[in-house]
Amino acid sequence: MILYVDRFAPNVRRVLMFIDEKGINVPVIELNIESGEHRSPRMLELNPLGQLPILELDDGGGLSESTAICRYLEELHPEPALFGENPTERALVEMWLRRVELGLFTPAVEYGHHTQPFFHDRFVQIAAWAALCRDRVAACCSLLERTLATSSYVAGDRFTVADVTAYCGIEIAILWGIGGYGDLGALTAWRGRIGARPSAAAARYLE
Amino acid sequence: MILYVDRFAPNVRRVLMFIDEKGINVPVIELNIESGEHRSPRMLELNPLGQLPILELDDGGGLSESTAICRYLEELHPEPALFGENPTERALVEMWLRRVELGLFTPAVEYGHHTQPFFHDRFVQIAAWAALCRDRVAACCSLLERTLATSSYVAGDRFTVADVTAYCGIEIAILWGIGGYGDLGALTAWRGRIGARPSAAAARYLE
Repeated sequence: MILYVDRFAPNVRRVLMFIDEKGINVPVIELNIESGEHRSPRMLELNPLGQLPILELDDGGGLSESTAICRYLEELHPEPALFGENPTERALVEMWLRRVELGLFTPAVEYGHHTQPFFHDRFVQIAAWAALCRDRVAACCSLLERTLATSSYVAGDRFTVADVTAYCGIEIAILWGIGGYGDLGALTAWRGRIGARPSAAAARYLE
Repeated sequence: MILYVDRFAPNVRRVLMFIDEKGINVPVIELNIESGEHRSPRMLELNPLGQLPILELDDGGGLSESTAICRYLEELHPEPALFGENPTERALVEMWLRRVELGLFTPAVEYGHHTQPFFHDRFVQIAAWAALCRDRVAACCSLLERTLATSSYVAGDRFTVADVTAYCGIEIAILWGIGGYGDLGALTAWRGRIGARPSAAAARYLE
């Protein structure tokens, strides 16, 4: 098993944070997205979408999509159970994972793609769409504020994959300059708690 | 357990198709999105995002997000295994579910929100963003065409939840007038096979 990554990619960072939380060892090979190493013939064979991360399985096949990689690693290494410990908990973790992915992580990434000079040559940039993404991030932060006022973590009283995705999402939102979370006390306190975990280093873009 | 739906909503249709494929009986209550019944105080208590479908659990709590509802029903009724039968198969089903959700289903729904007169008063409509969504649908259809040239279903040789989401996505794309799939023979043949299943009736918007 080999994990192909470029730490520039937000989805890579959430898989690396997940792996660190699991306390498992997965061999990692670093590729450079900017120079196109992730789109070599071999890499496109592993993932025709040309995206990282990719987990190369022991049978030589490729597994892509961050959540699929994390769920597969959870199947192989069930403890700690970051997707939940019983059917109801797994359902609620999945619900919150979706909410923070669709409401926070993805729109924060899209906001960057549609506003940052770095992506100018790579994507059609639509300012009006970026503004809608920023509004979605703000709405999700408000929802998280209400939730975290009465629970320690996004999906209840235990740290789960929903915290990983929400934390990576908020770090991207801050990196790209999306404001609006600063006066949310419960969210800020949660961000401090998650940021103090050793795994959080993997979620930050440091270059 | 009660499932709250409005068959107008694309996400409702994929949960109903999933339930039909499982062969289980879930009591359903129909609400009318247009008149705002899904945003009554009780419904907002079950899902603060104000979206359908919602599964009211036996403890009175609400479970939202279509995939979370489907996965929960699979936990309670494991057969037929629509999310996969072993760790590797579950990983590949999850990968394909993501690909068709992010590449086909969601952009097809967004395309409608950003182009159809019906949504004019409900959403900020951005024509340039709709065009990017249409391109994403076309790219995913090409990927599916290559995949379905060598396998009977989206995630391999068995019908799975990835087929449910892909089929609901392609039906929405056709409903909103997104072209580009018609000359794709393997995709068209697959659409015919899935459309012939009794469950497919639930995926169509018939009003």
